[in-house]
Amino acid sequence: MKKLLLGLPWPSCLRVGNIFELDKTNIINIPSCSGDPTMYERYWQEMGDKTTVVIPGWQFTSYFSDAGNLCWFLEPELAKEISRLHKVVGNAITEGRLIVVGTGSSQLFLAALYAFTENDASEPFSVVSAAPYYSSYPAATDCLKSGLYKWGGDARNFTKTGPYIELVTSPNNPDGFVRQSVVNRSGGILVHDLAYYWPQYTPITSAADYELMLFTVSKSTGHAGMRIGWALVKDPSIAKKMVKYIELSTIGVSKDSQLRAAKVLKVVSNSCGTAARPRENFFAYCHLLMAERWKLLREAVKQSGMFSLPEFEPGFCNFFQRLFEPLPAFAWLKCEGSVEDCESFLKSHNIWTRSGRHFGVSPSYVRVSMLDRDRTFGCFVKRLSQIHL
Amino acid sequence: MKKLLLGLPWPSCLRVGNIFELDKTNIINIPSCSGDPTMYERYWQEMGDKTTVVIPGWQFTSYFSDAGNLCWFLEPELAKEISRLHKVVGNAITEGRLIVVGTGSSQLFLAALYAFTENDASEPFSVVSAAPYYSSYPAATDCLKSGLYKWGGDARNFTKTGPYIELVTSPNNPDGFVRQSVVNRSGGILVHDLAYYWPQYTPITSAADYELMLFTVSKSTGHAGMRIGWALVKDPSIAKKMVKYIELSTIGVSKDSQLRAAKVLKVVSNSCGTAARPRENFFAYCHLLMAERWKLLREAVKQSGMFSLPEFEPGFCNFFQRLFEPLPAFAWLKCEGSVEDCESFLKSHNIWTRSGRHFGVSPSYVRVSMLDRDRTFGCFVKRLSQIHL
Repeated sequence: MKKLLLGLPWPSCLRVGNIFELDKTNIINIPSCSGDPTMYERYWQEMGDKTTVVIPGWQFTSYFSDAGNLCWFLEPELAKEISRLHKVVGNAITEGRLIVVGTGSSQLFLAALYAFTENDASEPFSVVSAAPYYSSYPAATDCLKSGLYKWGGDARNFTKTGPYIELVTSPNNPDGFVRQSVVNRSGGILVHDLAYYWPQYTPITSAADYELMLFTVSKSTGHAGMRIGWALVKDPSIAKKMVKYIELSTIGVSKDSQLRAAKVLKVVSNSCGTAARPRENFFAYCHLLMAERWKLLREAVKQSGMFSLPEFEPGFCNFFQRLFEPLPAFAWLKCEGSVEDCESFLKSHNIWTRSGRHFGVSPSYVRVSMLDRDRTFGCFVKRLSQIHL
Repeated sequence: MKKLLLGLPWPSCLRVGNIFELDKTNIINIPSCSGDPTMYERYWQEMGDKTTVVIPGWQFTSYFSDAGNLCWFLEPELAKEISRLHKVVGNAITEGRLIVVGTGSSQLFLAALYAFTENDASEPFSVVSAAPYYSSYPAATDCLKSGLYKWGGDARNFTKTGPYIELVTSPNNPDGFVRQSVVNRSGGILVHDLAYYWPQYTPITSAADYELMLFTVSKSTGHAGMRIGWALVKDPSIAKKMVKYIELSTIGVSKDSQLRAAKVLKVVSNSCGTAARPRENFFAYCHLLMAERWKLLREAVKQSGMFSLPEFEPGFCNFFQRLFEPLPAFAWLKCEGSVEDCESFLKSHNIWTRSGRHFGVSPSYVRVSMLDRDRTFGCFVKRLSQIHL
């Protein structure tokens, strides 16, 4: 039986790479670390050459995209399409916000930490998030042993005094629940990671209106290889410091990918218009796919009898103008009964997942990507359904 | 008279941006921060559609380029063309080296610091470079107040004990001289920034064979907007840690730009072959441009009588098979006589440059980009030639 690798997050990627190398013949697919969103490939193939970009050799010899803009490396066309798409979907306020583009939202997360902290602070700012939290947050925060900020763990157990930054991922990675901040002390700084706040995953209940909001094409349109994310920022002085961080760490962001992202976002916005055929509506297409997958997964879990999944309340989605239950990009699977280490247990059944331990909770949980290619996903649910005591 | 902005490095970019915004009508061109290599645009325009890339919408939904490779986000085609170009030019050994791709060489510089330092070291490693050094090194090193490494200043005055990393930029930014390491203690770690070790700038005297070598398309082919750099790394454990850093900071590198960079490098290699027309040879074309510009600049300096420039020894270039003097990407201009602050002095003549202070030396020096568009460069030399006591 071939091994299945689903939803392994970044910290284990190299290890997965090694396993992959040692055991190539035994792997069904490229490891879907961090929820490799290859599910989206099919939609874009069906759209043919609508989003094809052509870039001549003389383009982009300059570091600059828009020298008069505070974010001087942001392509104006991308800025325009970001604002347009948020208006079309209604998931975030863009009026009166500055857009900062980043090499994925990972870079923008680090830029936000740099921007909100102070060089002359007496101690590092604590960075916290309610468990289960995105497994890359602790490693990315602490990797350089920064004197500006330091990982402070689960926001629910955070008792340390002093300045802090709370990361609010909503819907949450890994468990898919809509979230609010939990620390709520005066002077607390919030960073909202809204990577999954799109209508294929969750009801769009209102236009988000926070201080700093992060988005990425990886999870919205499925183009993880572009490495394009963006931040909507209220305070110009914070945006300016984020730009400074990106300047110091990578001197801007690939213009080729910005150009491509602009085109993709444009096609997505167009697909939501009345002129588009129903089958073309990007969010409707992907929502249907997610609904089918969640149905298959819930059936498999039921058939097996050994696992459980989160149950979600339905919400009214302003975008689709109807009620539905969240369909998260990850399944947060729990081994019920006597199995303590769900990751190892599934590994023994040739399903590779990522243990809850990495997300700050019990190893009875694992995270599984719902965004892999059809074949891998189909194989996963089949295999899961056959696991019995 | 319009203001000229030449060769301003990154730390002043935002300030320049502000000035630019306040005073748009008075600026001749986009500020050429960090040596914006727009000079190269003309060559690529003349090459027409040879380096045009076409990217369909369904491409690059995955984070992965080559899951079996240690650098799992490196596009195999780019790896191939990097090795090929180094062979064609003869400027670096690639056999037995691992290639790590980065979002420009800035990211790879930070990745190298992360890779060479130790998380459990008793104190941060000192990062040093002989003055005048690239003005972004201190700011990029210290921006996060890392506990792993700390800027240690001019390598020539470095007396602190303990582990250190010496940055050797050769040819050097800003002054263009070929360099060797200067600290030379046992156990010292060297990072060679060879961004300018290409035959349009300097004689290729041998294939560089160091522990860790950094290159970038920004200075080799002039595509700064792509944000693509690469490291040639001897030690696999160092390469692995660099990959980890890039994973944590940006989860890989834009695949669109990697694809484009691969195509551009391929066309450059092809242009050096016997089948290409002489006018097409990329390095010959650019070398000629640089030679013309240096001739014009030296004439202007002579005509003015107020400045001096470095004098270089000619060297035999294995690539061009002839002797020539270096033609650096930056002019390291010195105000002679009673002028102490060359930057302010030139500013009063509407030429904006970057003071030697930012490069760790006297303000009687400034750095000026030699890679701007023809019009800006022509305007600069004309204006310089007219400055008299």
